[in-house]
Amino acid sequence: MSIDTIRTIEWKDDKVVMLDQRQLPLKEVYVTYEDYLGVAQAIKHMVIRGAPAIGVAAAFGVALGAMGIGVRTFEEFYEKLGIVCRRLAETRPTAVNLMWAVERMRACALAEQHRPLSEIVAALKKEANTIYHEDIEANRRMGRAGQTLLNDGDNVLTHCNAGALATAGFGTALGVIYAATEAGKRIHVYADETRPRLQGAGLTAWELQKHGIQVTVITDTMCASVMKQGKIQKVIVGADRIAANGDTANKIGTYGVALMAHYHKIPFYVAAPMSTIDPKITDGSQIPIEERDAREVTHIGQHRITPEHVEVINPAFDVTPAAFITAIITDRGIVKAPFTESIAALITQK
Amino acid sequence: MSIDTIRTIEWKDDKVVMLDQRQLPLKEVYVTYEDYLGVAQAIKHMVIRGAPAIGVAAAFGVALGAMGIGVRTFEEFYEKLGIVCRRLAETRPTAVNLMWAVERMRACALAEQHRPLSEIVAALKKEANTIYHEDIEANRRMGRAGQTLLNDGDNVLTHCNAGALATAGFGTALGVIYAATEAGKRIHVYADETRPRLQGAGLTAWELQKHGIQVTVITDTMCASVMKQGKIQKVIVGADRIAANGDTANKIGTYGVALMAHYHKIPFYVAAPMSTIDPKITDGSQIPIEERDAREVTHIGQHRITPEHVEVINPAFDVTPAAFITAIITDRGIVKAPFTESIAALITQK
Repeated sequence: MSIDTIRTIEWKDDKVVMLDQRQLPLKEVYVTYEDYLGVAQAIKHMVIRGAPAIGVAAAFGVALGAMGIGVRTFEEFYEKLGIVCRRLAETRPTAVNLMWAVERMRACALAEQHRPLSEIVAALKKEANTIYHEDIEANRRMGRAGQTLLNDGDNVLTHCNAGALATAGFGTALGVIYAATEAGKRIHVYADETRPRLQGAGLTAWELQKHGIQVTVITDTMCASVMKQGKIQKVIVGADRIAANGDTANKIGTYGVALMAHYHKIPFYVAAPMSTIDPKITDGSQIPIEERDAREVTHIGQHRITPEHVEVINPAFDVTPAAFITAIITDRGIVKAPFTESIAALITQK
Repeated sequence: MSIDTIRTIEWKDDKVVMLDQRQLPLKEVYVTYEDYLGVAQAIKHMVIRGAPAIGVAAAFGVALGAMGIGVRTFEEFYEKLGIVCRRLAETRPTAVNLMWAVERMRACALAEQHRPLSEIVAALKKEANTIYHEDIEANRRMGRAGQTLLNDGDNVLTHCNAGALATAGFGTALGVIYAATEAGKRIHVYADETRPRLQGAGLTAWELQKHGIQVTVITDTMCASVMKQGKIQKVIVGADRIAANGDTANKIGTYGVALMAHYHKIPFYVAAPMSTIDPKITDGSQIPIEERDAREVTHIGQHRITPEHVEVINPAFDVTPAAFITAIITDRGIVKAPFTESIAALITQK
């Protein structure tokens, strides 16, 4: 069987079309953006989310931005493109894919600087679409590599959504599960609901159900108890940024899940494309952690769950130390500890 | 300073008045029950919750039930009382305080069996009110003992609500914090929101705010990360049932919090009255765990958070092994490992 996953984002008739993930799982609504400011807003407010997906969105955003720059010289063009790039890069601080994609688009413009502006714009559109297709391909490769770690009948826990919805398609952590399913293995997924934004309950459950994978949603509070009962054989999560030593920033709660898996001797895997690795950062303590709006904690939908004026915090990510990670599944293969060496080897490998 | 906490439940003019906790923190609504079936429904649907509070509610329920039995002989009376007792005892399976209170009421009736029925009913009303006042006193004693474990300036994490709202008044885990505050110590509380029913975000935050204690609400996913940052000095939780060896059933998620505290070397305390100890149960594996309605997981208020027809589980409690518990704070003093011996000594002590 072959799984053709849903499309999270697409470039269509010089516009960007996104599935509005804020409305899932209740409604499947597609939104079209014609300018880069709209794309920046969409990333910031999480119409689209997931490290690889926002990388692709930012690349499309730069292409849209480039199309709208009406100047005559490359210098002027490149200056205006810088404004576009900064605006897109600053939408969310933790996922390095965003900066990676923006830098790649900027490098593309520089490489083409001696051609007419219209050709530079065409090259940028092409580069963004290349990033898009490369992401799907990377996920497919990750899936093929990672699925060898899963056995028929496994119950796999995942946290947040690292699926087709978090990428251009197929997914990172869920891509491994789709690939295992394609290989004929029966996999049952436990999806942590993942407060505050409930991406597990809303997005992971929705896309697994849509692709025919058996899924059980649990609240984040049930994770340790389900592990203790021996009901989980593997944990697979995605990543927003991986430091040179393997420390991994991912959705808030991942660190706790990794700690619980470690204690219960359950293998804990991170699945992420090479674009998620930030070799400039030596360890997790240097990864900036986004603090989001308090309302994500105090309300669910329109429903207030805390008293008025109560203090809350809302860090969107935490860092899992490399010591809790059994292996990192990348599009260049699977690496294990010592990660500083194995990740460095991946980066130099072509 | 002296903290006089809110009243969760009261016996008033031969009726039972409860604060409807399902409406907190948005509305403070009191409901009056005139018959035991209403009280049974209130316990089942969590108008009132918390192991000590539902023990008191059940005792009041038996008293209301006894008032409504119109028969002539003790045998007939005791048979009808048995129906009342069973109906109340079966509302929720995990908290042993419920069975304990019902058995104590039944024993009271038996002890008074040679007196006129009207006097037996009066004795039952008195016994229920004794249970009520004893619970507040037990909480006060627990607070005085437990507060010696806290230091001025401590940040204390708690899970679910083990406060005035979970008892006849003052609270178990939060009672310790109130007592520390009365002793002049400044305590800041981190309240886990505690999905699925959000008792931390709704009830703990509400009552701490009402009593002037500084509180920060976090999602359950933030707990490990906050601990890792060194922001939590102690954890205190309540209990629904404690086995003879110290294994403790408490709100789902407690086991995970205990594991995280253990790893981060943060003292983990359980505060519970003697009525929560079930010496007939040798270890936690024998404690029945209530499975509640799936809708508590799939919806928050009227807001659906999962796709339709998705599978969920909803165990209301988990069991924390005694090995993760630094000490148990009871109304007869504080006990530490080895718990089998120290708990047995508490039980024989008068």
